[in-house]
Amino acid sequence: MKLYDLEASGNCYKVRLFAALANIELELVPLDLASGAHKKPPFSDLNPLGQVPVLEDGKYAVRDSQAILVYLAGAYGGLAWWPAHPLGQAEIVQWLSFAANEVQHSLCAARLVQKFGYALDKEAALAKSAEVLSQLDKHLERNDWLAMGRPTIADCAVYPYVALAPEGGVDLTPYRHVASWLKRVEALPGYLPKP
Amino acid sequence: MKLYDLEASGNCYKVRLFAALANIELELVPLDLASGAHKKPPFSDLNPLGQVPVLEDGKYAVRDSQAILVYLAGAYGGLAWWPAHPLGQAEIVQWLSFAANEVQHSLCAARLVQKFGYALDKEAALAKSAEVLSQLDKHLERNDWLAMGRPTIADCAVYPYVALAPEGGVDLTPYRHVASWLKRVEALPGYLPKP
Repeated sequence: MKLYDLEASGNCYKVRLFAALANIELELVPLDLASGAHKKPPFSDLNPLGQVPVLEDGKYAVRDSQAILVYLAGAYGGLAWWPAHPLGQAEIVQWLSFAANEVQHSLCAARLVQKFGYALDKEAALAKSAEVLSQLDKHLERNDWLAMGRPTIADCAVYPYVALAPEGGVDLTPYRHVASWLKRVEALPGYLPKP
Repeated sequence: MKLYDLEASGNCYKVRLFAALANIELELVPLDLASGAHKKPPFSDLNPLGQVPVLEDGKYAVRDSQAILVYLAGAYGGLAWWPAHPLGQAEIVQWLSFAANEVQHSLCAARLVQKFGYALDKEAALAKSAEVLSQLDKHLERNDWLAMGRPTIADCAVYPYVALAPEGGVDLTPYRHVASWLKRVEALPGYLPKP
């Protein structure tokens, strides 16, 4: 399987991290975003949205980091990471949405401004980051993992931009339950260090 | 089952629409957001994020409209709406992320500003709306439905804020494949008209 990848992207790191934890082999295909390769064929045929990551498995292509986690876990990762019953799936999808919406528009946005110079509203991103981290901290005060009481793709979807938050100027020290959870993720067998 | 609901919310409408299409009975519990009921117990115990909708099914509570769609379809809706195989699930989750991220921060945001007076960047929301609608239009030029060649919860997740876009000052007329898809959704048996 090929992963069209960008080393610095937290969204790509979600997939690389999960593949490492679940012992799934991926061939990384680095995409040259500087030359606009993500906006042109053949890549734009794989993903008309022009975003990395994209997973190519034979004749199938899956875009969106959350969808790739579902695919990899469902097809190759086993039920521990993505269960077959609706309640467990819903518990995880809550956090996949949290990753796609809340985390993307807070911690990820702050990093895009500070590290890559994107023209986004940094103040709004930092205010939203504090809210998101408080919500996470409250959840992790009573839970070791985001969903189902064990490591799942929910953790793989949320961990990257939280771990990378200091690169966006976000101070993680007030959130001690988040800090403990980061350490738990980092202690998992096969853990792949952040970029 | 109880759905903690707000009539005007497109996120709540996603769930009401799907329940109508799949013939699932829900008891609607309107939440008084004006009095801050969503930020206080007992609701904040069900959803610490303080957002509607929340679904309560016996002792279980599911927050996040996308997660509720997965739960309802998986538990009560049947495999036509949410399949058991990873590739179909991933194809759908692509669009659940698109609903949680791209649609939320474009069409939904524009409506929040125009209809409800939220202090968001309207110009940015309108620019992103045009991009999102172009991407959808391009996909729907070659596909009758968002995923799997048939109606699924992907359509239920994306339809509401597209159908409600004119309330945010977004003109849908340039997007004729989107318009045809809206009509196809509206012709489904059991369709529940938009709020």
